[in-house]
Amino acid sequence: MARLEFWFEYASSYSYPATFAVGEACRAAGVELVWKPFILGPIFAAQGWNTSPFNLYPAKGKYMVRDLERICEKAGLPFRLDPDMNWPQFSIAAARIGLIGAREGWVEDFSKRLYALEFGDNLDISKEETLRQALDGVADADRVLAESRKRETKDALRAQVGDAVAAGIFGAPTYRVGDEIFWGGDRLDDALAWAITNTL
Amino acid sequence: MARLEFWFEYASSYSYPATFAVGEACRAAGVELVWKPFILGPIFAAQGWNTSPFNLYPAKGKYMVRDLERICEKAGLPFRLDPDMNWPQFSIAAARIGLIGAREGWVEDFSKRLYALEFGDNLDISKEETLRQALDGVADADRVLAESRKRETKDALRAQVGDAVAAGIFGAPTYRVGDEIFWGGDRLDDALAWAITNTL
Repeated sequence: MARLEFWFEYASSYSYPATFAVGEACRAAGVELVWKPFILGPIFAAQGWNTSPFNLYPAKGKYMVRDLERICEKAGLPFRLDPDMNWPQFSIAAARIGLIGAREGWVEDFSKRLYALEFGDNLDISKEETLRQALDGVADADRVLAESRKRETKDALRAQVGDAVAAGIFGAPTYRVGDEIFWGGDRLDDALAWAITNTL
Repeated sequence: MARLEFWFEYASSYSYPATFAVGEACRAAGVELVWKPFILGPIFAAQGWNTSPFNLYPAKGKYMVRDLERICEKAGLPFRLDPDMNWPQFSIAAARIGLIGAREGWVEDFSKRLYALEFGDNLDISKEETLRQALDGVADADRVLAESRKRETKDALRAQVGDAVAAGIFGAPTYRVGDEIFWGGDRLDDALAWAITNTL
């Protein structure tokens, strides 16, 4: 069966609409979807960035906000960035939970809920309260939070970032099919076509 | 009539397949196309870059090359980057000629020919010989080259870059419809849809 990896970051605004699109698109195309939550912080730091390109390059940052407004409007998703908050948010706690969700099969529900809280309601996703809200009805929050703080989970996220770097991934969202990577939410169709053509 | 500006840079590899696509797409959609050759050097320099993001960020650069191979293969265009040459190329002389071509109506033919020489044959587009080859059968090379070196043409290119900055443009290719910009060759359909929807 054709197989597509979806590499996404909870702090990444472009990962938000992509997360809402990828599951249905893969199911419709009959392509197996592997959720790969990771964090970009260490990857950006290695190339000399101490924050997101949104902040580093003002013209690009201004464009990205407008572009996301258009993309989200088209997808029927709310989008706002409270100017009194710091963007991007700290996503490491969320990524550790996402890893557990990917292993246990509830990552899609959790991720959609968390992104909606982040970019729809502008809640702080580094707070336990927000993470619990996203887990509500999805998984046992007490158990998952405890597990997310274990050494094994932290190591697993570190390993996931290492895998991203080894795969040549430098931004999010990124679709990966075999050794081919496709960067940017708008490349989903290309990635799916590649998955289907190269699996037959 | 709906109207779309196409901002492109002769040194930009992503501008190459976009240049081969934009004319036909606009004619098919009944959208007026305004060619806007410019240079990114001063814009990159203002954000602290002394070369292209291809070179600054190796993982991104490696991805871009592979991505362009796929895009060009799909479009039936040759693509290679001779490893013994310096990329990106110096494009200021080409941009000045492109400006004249945009004014006189032969910019599309000239640009396609020049990009083919650059990314198909890996000729040096800063050389008069290559520029003459791209002008051959398109315009009077002696007259155009002389005009491209005049003070007025240099000023016009400087003004064009100023217009790009004022419009919030930070990369190429960029499509512009009214005040909306769409960055990246793969956003042509979005830009055309915007042009059509917002002109009716």
